[in-house]
Amino acid sequence: MFEFKIHKLGKNTKARTGVFSTPHGKIQTPVFMPVGTRATVKTLSPDELKTLDAEIILANTYHLMLRPGEKTIKKFKGLHKWMNWDRPILTDSGGFQIFSLGQDKDLPKNATKTAKVRIKENGVEFQSHLDGSRHFITPEKATKIQHDIGADIIMAFDECAPGDSTKEYFIKAMNRTHDWLTKCKATHEKAGKNKTQALFGIVQGGTYKDLREISAKFVASQNLPGNAIGGLAVGENKATMLKMIETVIPHLPENKPRYLMGVGTPPDLLEAVDRGIDMFDCVLPTRLARHSAFWTQKGLNHIKNTKFKNDKLPLDPKCNCYACKNFSRSYIYHLMREGELLGHRLMTIHNLHFLLNLMRLIRTSIEQGTFKKFKSSFLKKWQNK
Amino acid sequence: MFEFKIHKLGKNTKARTGVFSTPHGKIQTPVFMPVGTRATVKTLSPDELKTLDAEIILANTYHLMLRPGEKTIKKFKGLHKWMNWDRPILTDSGGFQIFSLGQDKDLPKNATKTAKVRIKENGVEFQSHLDGSRHFITPEKATKIQHDIGADIIMAFDECAPGDSTKEYFIKAMNRTHDWLTKCKATHEKAGKNKTQALFGIVQGGTYKDLREISAKFVASQNLPGNAIGGLAVGENKATMLKMIETVIPHLPENKPRYLMGVGTPPDLLEAVDRGIDMFDCVLPTRLARHSAFWTQKGLNHIKNTKFKNDKLPLDPKCNCYACKNFSRSYIYHLMREGELLGHRLMTIHNLHFLLNLMRLIRTSIEQGTFKKFKSSFLKKWQNK
Repeated sequence: MFEFKIHKLGKNTKARTGVFSTPHGKIQTPVFMPVGTRATVKTLSPDELKTLDAEIILANTYHLMLRPGEKTIKKFKGLHKWMNWDRPILTDSGGFQIFSLGQDKDLPKNATKTAKVRIKENGVEFQSHLDGSRHFITPEKATKIQHDIGADIIMAFDECAPGDSTKEYFIKAMNRTHDWLTKCKATHEKAGKNKTQALFGIVQGGTYKDLREISAKFVASQNLPGNAIGGLAVGENKATMLKMIETVIPHLPENKPRYLMGVGTPPDLLEAVDRGIDMFDCVLPTRLARHSAFWTQKGLNHIKNTKFKNDKLPLDPKCNCYACKNFSRSYIYHLMREGELLGHRLMTIHNLHFLLNLMRLIRTSIEQGTFKKFKSSFLKKWQNK
Repeated sequence: MFEFKIHKLGKNTKARTGVFSTPHGKIQTPVFMPVGTRATVKTLSPDELKTLDAEIILANTYHLMLRPGEKTIKKFKGLHKWMNWDRPILTDSGGFQIFSLGQDKDLPKNATKTAKVRIKENGVEFQSHLDGSRHFITPEKATKIQHDIGADIIMAFDECAPGDSTKEYFIKAMNRTHDWLTKCKATHEKAGKNKTQALFGIVQGGTYKDLREISAKFVASQNLPGNAIGGLAVGENKATMLKMIETVIPHLPENKPRYLMGVGTPPDLLEAVDRGIDMFDCVLPTRLARHSAFWTQKGLNHIKNTKFKNDKLPLDPKCNCYACKNFSRSYIYHLMREGELLGHRLMTIHNLHFLLNLMRLIRTSIEQGTFKKFKSSFLKKWQNK
C-alpha cells in the first residue's frame, strides 16, 4: 500500500508520470484533486465527479471537525461511506485554515498576535469562524481527527506563517512545524494507521531559500510515503513561488509523490509539473464557476458578459464536457444571470473538466516525451499569464 | 396531434387514465408537471428530470418574456432546443404572475387598484418585478409570445382576481377572461399554430358556484384541445376548492384533458384525480426542497431537525430515488445546514420523485380498478392533512 511507481521520466524536464496506490484505488500522477471543503465538491454529485474522471478529492479537516464533527463521520466508518465516495480522499490537517483565521483584513496581519489564533509550542488555540467557540488543537489531535475522518492520505499539522512575517518568525514557525511533524508521525504510528492511511509531511520556510532547504531535508528524513510543499501561492509573486519549488525538489526523494498545496491556475500546474510536482489541489475551478468565470484554451472568460446573451456556441467549442456538449453560452448566461443553480453546476463541471483534462494531456505528453512542447504550445495560447 | 385517448375509467370515481399526444411525445395522465419557472427546474439537469421520468415540464411566460425575452428563445428555434429538453413543455400565459404582482403584502389587496398592475379591457399594464420597467400585455401578445417560446401546450391569457374580491368584480374578471380567450384563440388560429401548439382555455369564477358553471360552459364551448381550472388553491379552504372542482368538471368535455393549475400537495392530487382532473403543476416539491422539507408516506419532515444529525437511514427508507439510494439523512442534514447545493439537489430529486411516483401509483391503481382503495390507504398514513 502507498507504493509510488514512477512510470515515465520526461525529457529535459523534472516532470514524470507515476501511479500512487491507496486503499481506495490507484491515482495517476501528475494529478489534480478537486476540493470538497465540507465533504462535497460544490454543486456536484459523486457520480458526476466520476464522470469527470476525478481520481481523488480533497476535504478540509478544519471544517469537518467543527461540523458535523469527526465523531459523526466515524459513526459512518469514515468519510468515504458518509459522503458516498469510494475513490481516494486526502484531508488537509486544518493548519492552513486555522492560521488563515488570523489573517482577516480587519485584523492585524500577524496571525500569531490576534485573539482568534494563539500559538503555543504544543498546539494552537483558535476561535471557530462559525460560532466563536474556542478550540485547542495539537499535532496529536489533528492526526487523531484525521484518523476518525479516515481519508487515504492525511497531512501533518503545520504552521503556515503569514507571508509578511520576519525571517526570525519563519524560522520559529518552521521549527515548530518540524517538531509537530514528529509528533504527528509518532501518533500515526502508535495508532497503527500506517497501512490504511498515508501521512504526508509538509515543507515550510516561507520565501527563504535556506529555510526551504533545511525544511525539505528534515521532512524528507522522516521517510513518509509522500511529501508536500506548503506556504506557497499565498501572495508571493510567481517567480518566487517557482524558485521555492526548484529549491525544495532536489531534497525530496524521487520515489515519493510530491504535493504542491493550494495550486493553482493552468499555467501554474504546467510550471510546477515541469519542476517535479506530482499532486495539486485548488479551489479555483469551483470558485471561479461560482463567480461566473470559465476557462478555455485562451484563458479566462466571464459568462455574464452581455456578448454571450444570444451566443449559440458552447462555453468552449473544443470541450467535451457535459456542459459543452449540451448547452449554449446563451442558456448558461441566462442561468447565471438569474442565479439558477443549474448554471453553477454546469460552470463547475466545465472548469473541473478543463483542469482534469489538462492533467490527462500533461500525463500523455510526458509519456510521449513531448511535455516541453505541449507546455510551450499551451502557454502560447493562454492570454491570462 | 393533441389527441386525448382515455385508456381506463376508474370504479366509483371520476378518475381516469389517458394519453395526450404532443409534438414532443405522449403524456400519460393523470400527470404532474414539475415547474421550471426560468426554463430550468431548479437545481436539476434535463437528464435528471428524465431519470425521474418527468414526461412534461412547465415554464413561466412572465419570467421568460422579461429575461431572456422571447426573441432570444426564438433565435434558438424555441425553448426545447434552448434549454435542451426534448420532451413536452407547457407554458402558462403570464396572467397569474402579473396579477400576483399587485398582491404584495405591502400593497392594497385588490390588485386592480395598485400602480403595479392596471387592468384595461384590452389588456394589462404591469411593472416588472426585476427593474420596474412598464409593460403592456394583451391576450394577442401573450399568445404570440408563447408562439415564440414554442411550448407544446400554451395557455390562454386570463385574469386571476384576488380571492377577496366582490362577486361583482369576479363577474367582471370572468367576462374579461372569456373575451380574452376568444382573442387568444383567434390569434392562435390566425398564426396557423393549431397543429404544433395546443391552446388550453382557463375556467375562472372565484369561489362562486354559478360563476364557475357559466365559465366552464363558455370555456368548453371553445372546443379547444384541453381545458384548465384557474384561480383555485389561492387561499380558499380545501373544501371550497374541491366543491369548485366538482362544480366545473361536469361541464368540461370528457374527451379532453382537464388541468388544475397550481395544485398541489399529495392529498390534493388524490382528491382532484378522484374528481376527474388529469393534469397538475405546482412549485411545492422544488420549493419545499429549498426550505429543507421532504415528503415520506407519513407526510412532511424537515431535514434540518437535529434528530437527523447521525441518522443512517435515507430520507425515506421506502424510496428508490437517487438521493435515497445513495445518501443518509445525516449527510443531507449536513449539506442543508451548510447551505451546500448538493443538498438542495438531493432534496429536489427526492420530492419530485415522490410526486411523480405518486402519479404512477395513481395511474396503476386506476388501471387496476383500485384507485379508491389506494387513495384511502394513502390518506390514512398521511399526517399533514
